[in-house]
Amino acid sequence: MNPAAFRWATALLSLAFSGAGEAAPEMLWRQLEPENTVFMELPQGRVVIELNPVFAPKTVARFQLLVQSRFYTGLGFYRVIDGFVAQGGDGSDLGELSESPLIDAEFEIDWSDALPFVAAQKPDLFAAETGFIDGFASARDQEEKKVWLTHCPGVVAMARNDDPNSSRTDFYIVIGQAPRYLDRNLNIFGRVVDGMEIVQQIARGPEENNGVFQDDISSTRIRSMKLLSEFPAEDQAGIFIMDTSSKAFARLLDERRKRKQKFFHQQPPKVLDVCQVPVATRYGQ
Amino acid sequence: MNPAAFRWATALLSLAFSGAGEAAPEMLWRQLEPENTVFMELPQGRVVIELNPVFAPKTVARFQLLVQSRFYTGLGFYRVIDGFVAQGGDGSDLGELSESPLIDAEFEIDWSDALPFVAAQKPDLFAAETGFIDGFASARDQEEKKVWLTHCPGVVAMARNDDPNSSRTDFYIVIGQAPRYLDRNLNIFGRVVDGMEIVQQIARGPEENNGVFQDDISSTRIRSMKLLSEFPAEDQAGIFIMDTSSKAFARLLDERRKRKQKFFHQQPPKVLDVCQVPVATRYGQ
Repeated sequence: MNPAAFRWATALLSLAFSGAGEAAPEMLWRQLEPENTVFMELPQGRVVIELNPVFAPKTVARFQLLVQSRFYTGLGFYRVIDGFVAQGGDGSDLGELSESPLIDAEFEIDWSDALPFVAAQKPDLFAAETGFIDGFASARDQEEKKVWLTHCPGVVAMARNDDPNSSRTDFYIVIGQAPRYLDRNLNIFGRVVDGMEIVQQIARGPEENNGVFQDDISSTRIRSMKLLSEFPAEDQAGIFIMDTSSKAFARLLDERRKRKQKFFHQQPPKVLDVCQVPVATRYGQ
Repeated sequence: MNPAAFRWATALLSLAFSGAGEAAPEMLWRQLEPENTVFMELPQGRVVIELNPVFAPKTVARFQLLVQSRFYTGLGFYRVIDGFVAQGGDGSDLGELSESPLIDAEFEIDWSDALPFVAAQKPDLFAAETGFIDGFASARDQEEKKVWLTHCPGVVAMARNDDPNSSRTDFYIVIGQAPRYLDRNLNIFGRVVDGMEIVQQIARGPEENNGVFQDDISSTRIRSMKLLSEFPAEDQAGIFIMDTSSKAFARLLDERRKRKQKFFHQQPPKVLDVCQVPVATRYGQ
């Protein structure tokens, strides 16, 4: 291990606080609700998804039903484009045409002062303002009085066709540079909180066919999907997410914005890409 | 295959032109120079890197030497953080302290009107202006008269410690959301033009250790690295990159900026993230 390289690692990525003398606020953590936590088992390992019923209540309710009915067991990621999305969950994959009803558009919600919004960037390239709400990257427009979740890596959303209200069972996970142009156009209903390195191992489809597999044997298949609330109480892991409304998180944002480390020969602009801020997950009691 | 999902695929990703009646300009392609093309063989497959001697002449010359001397054979990616970078190429990995000399900082170059810059976004969040030069995402500041390559997914750059002139042999590949705050602070000298899906399979290091493997057996190792020019002439594949200075590429940027497809219920802002524009690669004669 090259010590120089290690210093680079610590200089750039440390989440530790390095305030000048003042006591750093302690990070607070929020425990995931078991009914809004999905364990998706892939051949390579487990992916944990947090659902967001505040922004997409109907989509979350439907997804919970589909998970509980084991709809997704055995279905593949049939359209996977490196740097863009991994899309799966089509029932016709196993020869059954889904009878699952259509889901209404849930692209944005009305702004409310009760939402625990912490600002990241104003203005942002794609929105008047970005920030975090309950660990989710989001954007808001105070003139329009609207707020929505943004398409960052790890976001889970429902696919649809041209009709805004045409989502059914197919979902996608963003696996590359944030496709922010999709914001306010799709039902984002969750995000991967653990196992993105597993998601990155999902087999990519053929480029010449727009990432869509033409056979049924090459795609990565979902072994099972289960809500955490379906496990016996004693087996329910405690999963915690950084509390993005805490002072410590605001300070973390500020430190990423200012980049005072000696490493920086040229001071970066004091801006933040909301999709480039890690919100950590930990397991515990 | 769900036809709805397929329509979504084609609506969002088609690179085909859909001009209203007018003849679309044909895409032009630029052939890679064999001496600036690196084949990196990983256990999972081949990764093709294009070197950029215009922006990083000293770094490219050194990297070509290291590749030709087979320095990287057997070395691992010893620090891999999902969503950030895969870093490898430390000689001490195999018990040898590298004697390779330090490389000067090559963070930016002077602007020249001879550079084939095509604009993507002005202003950008992190720079006065972004665009493409010879297939590479770049940014420029016309007041400062400087231009530089930007940290997009697939970018290959030299690691260093706090000293700007301390790069040696360790390099990293960006594998997640563009860490644009690193722009103008590191020697970007290439980009992955094929095989990012292979790069995404590089084993991630332990999170609690900042992605750094503590043993030598868990990291993904480089089987070999070779310049395309080292292969016999008859074995040299023709690799072509979209000519980003062509009219067809400018039109592609414009179509991505305007997003006229019926799919968009809400018109996205007319902006482009330079790191979210695919520049295609093809093999041929």
